[in-house]
Formats: sequence, C-alpha cells, structure tokens
Amino acid sequence: MKIEGKNYRTIWFENNEVKIIDQTKLPHKFIIKSLKSVEEAINAIKTMEVRGAPLIGATAAYGLVLSIIEKNDSLFLKKSSEDLINSRPTAINLKWAVDRMIKKLSGVNDKDILTIALSEASAIVEEDISFCKNIGLNGLKVIEKISNKKNKDTVNILTHCNAGWLATIDWGTATSPIYQAHQKGIKIHVWVDETRPRNQGANLTSFELNEEGIPNTIITDNTGGILMQRGKVDICIVGTDRTLSNGDVCNKIGTYLKALAAKDNNIPFYVALPSSTIDWNIKYHDQIPIEERNSTELSHIEGIDKDNQIKKVRIYPKKSKSLNLAFDITPAKYVSGLITEKGICEASEKGLKELFK
Amino acid sequence: MKIEGKNYRTIWFENNEVKIIDQTKLPHKFIIKSLKSVEEAINAIKTMEVRGAPLIGATAAYGLVLSIIEKNDSLFLKKSSEDLINSRPTAINLKWAVDRMIKKLSGVNDKDILTIALSEASAIVEEDISFCKNIGLNGLKVIEKISNKKNKDTVNILTHCNAGWLATIDWGTATSPIYQAHQKGIKIHVWVDETRPRNQGANLTSFELNEEGIPNTIITDNTGGILMQRGKVDICIVGTDRTLSNGDVCNKIGTYLKALAAKDNNIPFYVALPSSTIDWNIKYHDQIPIEERNSTELSHIEGIDKDNQIKKVRIYPKKSKSLNLAFDITPAKYVSGLITEKGICEASEKGLKELFK
Repeated sequence: MKIEGKNYRTIWFENNEVKIIDQTKLPHKFIIKSLKSVEEAINAIKTMEVRGAPLIGATAAYGLVLSIIEKNDSLFLKKSSEDLINSRPTAINLKWAVDRMIKKLSGVNDKDILTIALSEASAIVEEDISFCKNIGLNGLKVIEKISNKKNKDTVNILTHCNAGWLATIDWGTATSPIYQAHQKGIKIHVWVDETRPRNQGANLTSFELNEEGIPNTIITDNTGGILMQRGKVDICIVGTDRTLSNGDVCNKIGTYLKALAAKDNNIPFYVALPSSTIDWNIKYHDQIPIEERNSTELSHIEGIDKDNQIKKVRIYPKKSKSLNLAFDITPAKYVSGLITEKGICEASEKGLKELFK
Repeated sequence: MKIEGKNYRTIWFENNEVKIIDQTKLPHKFIIKSLKSVEEAINAIKTMEVRGAPLIGATAAYGLVLSIIEKNDSLFLKKSSEDLINSRPTAINLKWAVDRMIKKLSGVNDKDILTIALSEASAIVEEDISFCKNIGLNGLKVIEKISNKKNKDTVNILTHCNAGWLATIDWGTATSPIYQAHQKGIKIHVWVDETRPRNQGANLTSFELNEEGIPNTIITDNTGGILMQRGKVDICIVGTDRTLSNGDVCNKIGTYLKALAAKDNNIPFYVALPSSTIDWNIKYHDQIPIEERNSTELSHIEGIDKDNQIKKVRIYPKKSKSLNLAFDITPAKYVSGLITEKGICEASEKGLKELFK
C-alpha cells in the first residue's frame, strides 16, 4: 500500500539483507532499516520495529535466511529457530513460520539450503499477501451488505490496534476489507482506537488510512462504548494474534471490551485472520500465556515537541507502579464471524473446521 | 487527605480569595492557586484546574461568593450564575450548587448577602465532606464482606478516572471506602485505570493513593477486562458525574466498558455518589448531553522530560483527526449497587426513592 504516494511492502529481501520499515518511528518518521543478521531480526521482533502476527512470521522466516547466510550450520540454525520463537511469547505465527521453514530445510544439503530457505521465505510472504487480499474480498461482502441495507452514505467501522498492512506484508487483515470497500467506491469512515499503551491505532492505523485517503478519526480506547450506544458504529472489524480452534480470539488488549460493547448494542463484531493464526492445539483460552511487557511502555511516551524533535516524556507519577499486559481474550460468543482467506465462518470449532479441514 | 505528609482539602476560602490545588499540574507539580474573581473560578472549572462533580459544585458556590465581593449587584450575580452553570455541560452538581446558592440569597439585602453566601458555600463544602465520609463507611461494609468471604490477604479493587478526594473536598467518593478500609487495616490493592485522554487515573488517583500509602498499580484502560477474566479483580468501585433516577450512571468515558466486563465475569460493580449527583428530571440517558472537549487533549500530552521539565508533545500523526467525548452511560442493569451517604441501594428508581424520598 501507499506511503507518501509510493507503493511499499513491509518487508523485502535485497542484496543479502532484509529491509523493513522501522515501525517504532512511525508516524513521526518513515525509516527503512536493514537487518543483516538473525540477531538483528530477533531484535527487530523484540523491540517491535516489526509487529503484527503475519509480519512477525515473515521476519522470522527471513531471520532464518540471515542465519544461514551468516553461518551455514545446523546447530546454529537450531539455536536461531529457538531464539526466534522465543522473541515474542504470544504470536502463533512466529512458531508457525519457523516450523514451516525448518520442515522445508530438513535434509537439504549445505549447497542448496540458502536458495531453498529464500524461496520458502518468499513463498510465506507471497502467500500472506494473497491471503490478506482474499480476506479483504470476503470481508467486503459484509461491508457491502451494511452499506446496501442501511442505504446510508457512509459506513462507520471501528477497529482496534493495527491489523493493517503494516502488521502484514500488504493489505492487512482487519483493514483489507476497508481498503477493498474504499477501492470499490463505498464511502467509509473509520473510528480508530488509539490502543494504549503503544498507540498502534493512532500511530499506525490512522497513519495508514491517511496515506490511502480514507477518512478516519482517532478515539481513546474508552470511547467505542458511547459511540456504539449512540448509533455511531455500524460494524467492528479487528485482527487477531491467535485464534483458538473453539473460536476464542486472543488479540491486542482491549479488544474484548469492544466486543462486549458491540454485543450489548447489537453491532456486528468481526475478526479478520489468515488461517496461520489459528492454534489447533490449545483448547482453553486460560492456557494462553499473556505477554507482560516493560512497564515503561505505559509510564513513558514519545511524541514531537514544538521544535519538531522526537522527545520521550514520563507521564506517570514518579512513585507509581504500572502493569503492561499485551493481549486479552474475546470469547467466541461475542464474535459475529471470522473473516478468513477461504471465506467467512462462525467463530466455533465447527465453523473453522468447515473451512479448514 | 495527605500530600507530602500534610493534610489538605481541595478548596478553601482565605483572605477574600478561593484557594485551590491546580490539578492540571499534578502529579508533576503541587501548586496552590488563588482565584480572585468569578471569571477566574469559571476558568478554573473550564480548564479543569478543578474537576470532579462535587469539587466543581463547591467551586461554583465559591465563585458566586467571589462575584459578590467583586460587584454586589443582582444582575451581575445572575450573569455569574449562568456563566458558572455553562462552564461544563455534563456535571449536575454545578447547577445544583448554583441553584442552592441563589435560592438562599434570594431576597437577602446587600449588607448581609456576602456573609450569607460565604456561610452557604461553606455549608456545601462541609456537607460534601460529611457525605463523602459516610459513603466511605457504607462502602466499607462491601469491602469487608469481600475480605471476610474470600478470606484473602488482599482485596483487589479496580477504579476508573479519579473519584478521589481530589474530585471532592476530602475523602472522595469511589476512594472513600478504600481509605476507610485501609485505615481499618484491611489489605487493599487498587488497579488504577489510566483514564485517557486526561489520565486522571494515573495523574490523580494513583498520586492520591501513593500519598496515603495504599498499594496501587496503573493499567491502561484496555487492561481491566483480562484482569477480570483471570480473577485479579474482586470489586470495581467508580464515581459518577450524573446519576439518573432510573439508576443509569453517566461517568467518565470508559466506565461503561468496565461495567460490561464486570458483569461478564460476575464481579461486583459499585458506583459511589453523594445524592447531589442524582438527576431526578432526566428520564432517559440518551437525553444527557455528552460533553465534547478539545481534540488536542488526545493528540498532545504533557510529561516530564529527562531534564525534569514539563514538556508537551504531539503523539498523533500530523494529518489525523480525533474526537474527544468526556462521558459515557452505564445502564443500571450493570450496576450492582449505588453507595450513597445514606446507605447502599439498588440502581433503580425504587432503590433511590427508598433512600431519598
């Protein structure tokens, strides 16, 4: 999608390096960064220079390519795999991408391994783009239905965090139906949850939508409830970091609260996902580890000062403690449907199994 | 209550001036400010140097005292009353306090009017302190019950925004049961919702609790849901800016989302209020005007930089729009009970009428 009028992807391979957009600098600065080693790839995941389940997966896949370039050695590859998987605890795509790479590379001889690794990483990337595009085409039907039924000028969509193209390779998941609808000429307005503490909604989703020319308004995470109570939201579409086989959704913290409000106000609440985020193994959501991140992500914040410089300030009282949990669980009963690359299904084991045997 | 070990109230009259704590500077700076005219009182309300329904009411009462000192004239008093009532649109106490003052002053001769105004403003203040203390003693029973029933070491209480002593004159509303329980030796830990966009939870509630030595942890507004899902919250206690006669509660934006999560997880959700916040006239919550504040309260934030200076930074993309609604509605069905100065009642017309004929 576009930044400053030019088309980009979030990750690409060029001259034996992996190029990423440093997302910690957005929206204030647009910086393309080179990753030259698996360690740099791990670090990019940990510090959230890349974030979003599909992009993390792609970065892990390319991380293994960098590992092979660095040292073509099976023990080193094994260690790289483990370190990559452990770089973020909640995102299922990380393990999925690493496992897929390792499976492909098992038994491959030293001479061919780099070519095969690169081609597999590239396949993961292209597959994600095609999945995201299909998610958009499937989700478009839901938006079209609302647009026709309400016979209204503008469809108001609420989204949380960034499940946009910046979280994937292109198109995004939750944003893909929005981009498709916009390109089809349906008038859209997006309520963008700020998404504390890292403000990915404000910093990334609103930024993305601005760059594509889609009207959007940032709101605090507290605001969605009253907007729904007063009829200002037609549909919610969010992403997911991990979808359980029973349809429960683990996504950015705060998603659950919006799902409750949507239910309470009879507003459809959809979750958009590529099938790679489905976790077929975990049965109960209380088994999902909830990542606890550094509390300075709450107590400190970066912005632009009056001299146009990026400044970090402490916003909490000096003596105060804070807790930084990254995800919550939206039980399947609050999800109107799962928008996947293969179609839309009920948020249930039955629904998921009908699409994905 | 205490700041830096010394006891304060949030507002007092001294040498023909009204003294307030400038709450826009907290928690970074503790500044006592003098209001010398009704215009300065109106401005203090508008800019939220004073905030919280009871404190706004007291400031309006003292504002009329300042108006009389300035110009002992009935037309000026009438204009002052109207301007004070219009300084914030949602808080019911504002109108309540002004109406009470004007009623008391009607027919009073010019010689006595200042003395009577001052004594009535002082009565409003003392009454609020006594109401808040009683709210605490009534709410204490609920906390004691949880403490005994769970036979647990620590009672975990979640609160939103600041319904603390800084929002009243002393004790607070939602915090009063907490202070009472703490003083009685019950172990308390408070989850403090940050409360975007103005962060009154972090800036004021956490600050207050720190100064009183009560363990507390700031969380983003998104976090309460997962904490409730995982059994980390025993009870929610919040304040209210306006309580409808049917038990619906209009409070700081985001309250509704926590009430939904509490209901979904069978956690008691109490609202603490002095009866002055009850609006016996409005029947349906959609008739309540929701205050829309300046969007720069979202897009910009103040904090302390590395040189220990207060700095304001822009945190949103330059091109982005934002919307700043200040309140939402928690329907009565999600409220376990109303903790008032006269006792605890059901959140319903029947419940309220039993306590307040």
